[in-house]
Amino acid sequence: MTHPLDEATRLLPLDGNRFQGATHPAYANMVGPYGGVTAATLLNGALLHPQRLGEPVSLTVNFPAPVADGAFEVECRPLRTNRSTQHWLLLMSQGGEVVASGTALFALRRPGWSDTEVALPEGLPAFDSLPRQPVAGYPAWVAAYDMRFVSGGMDRPLDGVEQPDSVTRLWVRDEPPRPLDFLALAAACDCFAPRTYVRRHQRTPAGTVTFTVNFHADAAGLAAQGPHALFGQARAQAFFGGYCDQTALLWGADGRLLASSQQVQYFKG
Amino acid sequence: MTHPLDEATRLLPLDGNRFQGATHPAYANMVGPYGGVTAATLLNGALLHPQRLGEPVSLTVNFPAPVADGAFEVECRPLRTNRSTQHWLLLMSQGGEVVASGTALFALRRPGWSDTEVALPEGLPAFDSLPRQPVAGYPAWVAAYDMRFVSGGMDRPLDGVEQPDSVTRLWVRDEPPRPLDFLALAAACDCFAPRTYVRRHQRTPAGTVTFTVNFHADAAGLAAQGPHALFGQARAQAFFGGYCDQTALLWGADGRLLASSQQVQYFKG
Repeated sequence: MTHPLDEATRLLPLDGNRFQGATHPAYANMVGPYGGVTAATLLNGALLHPQRLGEPVSLTVNFPAPVADGAFEVECRPLRTNRSTQHWLLLMSQGGEVVASGTALFALRRPGWSDTEVALPEGLPAFDSLPRQPVAGYPAWVAAYDMRFVSGGMDRPLDGVEQPDSVTRLWVRDEPPRPLDFLALAAACDCFAPRTYVRRHQRTPAGTVTFTVNFHADAAGLAAQGPHALFGQARAQAFFGGYCDQTALLWGADGRLLASSQQVQYFKG
Repeated sequence: MTHPLDEATRLLPLDGNRFQGATHPAYANMVGPYGGVTAATLLNGALLHPQRLGEPVSLTVNFPAPVADGAFEVECRPLRTNRSTQHWLLLMSQGGEVVASGTALFALRRPGWSDTEVALPEGLPAFDSLPRQPVAGYPAWVAAYDMRFVSGGMDRPLDGVEQPDSVTRLWVRDEPPRPLDFLALAAACDCFAPRTYVRRHQRTPAGTVTFTVNFHADAAGLAAQGPHALFGQARAQAFFGGYCDQTALLWGADGRLLASSQQVQYFKG
């Protein structure tokens, strides 16, 4: 059985830098697909490219327009390849219009000094001790994850009572479980609900407009995490003029920080 | 008198999406110009573009190769313009080779709920009570800022004694003083030394490879800050395989968070 994430991020080479893909119902969001999977799909184009050098270090994806259900084209252009680094331009288009754009940095990692400076919080309740976030009534992509909230979850009614902060802490893994790799890690960095839902406890229209993931592991390090849940933490730092930021971290269960992410979300209200 | 930052980011329109600029000695770094000014120059291309919509919300710039001293060309291509948002592709090239690449999101800001969720630290010593970071022996760009360190500065000898964290806190303003705008704010987000210098207290080769700035103010809000020093805080969250991240925040002296930034730095050792 192929995992839905592999189906959703699958790309067929067309020619040169171009690939063909299609949206997948398992990752449908309210409008178009879940942005984390769109980002992972663009990343996959660079991973599959015959001229690819090394492994992903950083990925930025912008969302200029909703991706329509159905086929899309991906263009992955190596802008510059050096001895140990490679910079990519990534474009997803439908009907000749850009629907997602981005850049990526790949590199041949050098062995050397490593450290998780921002540690996994202590005293966390175990994944198995927490209830799974219900998936009924949510867009399909929510059911593609097993999310177990420690705080800042969506479990209370959105009653419009403003909260002191927008911090969410949760365990998250693919559902069904899937060994971790760059695609799954990139996608999971987008699993957090809009920060206005958490901070203002109201569900007004909101969504991601730009999304960056920095990777702190190589393919072997990710594979070693297996299919276990990651611990995630996210918060907004500022809200202004219809946009807020979100900074997010994902640790392995072993305490290693695997990815740090930042995004900007628009919101109404 | 034109401020050096305005000279350094000046662009002359060539045709369509292309502009001509040149590096400026006031922002010279060890190799090529200070990355913050390269990023601000790319941003300026979009700001100057006749098709520009709204104001900057997010900017990501990648540094594939050192920028050589002298002339460069900037291409700013509006990838997609919607009713209230506009997505840009930004490229700087020399001799036909890409030396910096990026994307930007501009938007017509909507009035609405605003908040600084991550507050300016309390009890900070005043800018005037602190000594200016010496500039002798550093690359030219250091003298283009007045930096006053509260912690994590470069004031002690780099003796190789590892520190518990890589946090830097400082006041920073342009030198000579200059009213704040998007160019100055984007550039200042890159003022922090490589995090390995602070954490490992050793100066091995290091530099920025990708840099994102999210703006939390509009032009009027930035102008209202005047030429006063901003408070900045930066830290790495993880180091792995020759790369680390850096998350940074810049507040106005009035306590408003004006920008949040993230970058990836390579390092040796």
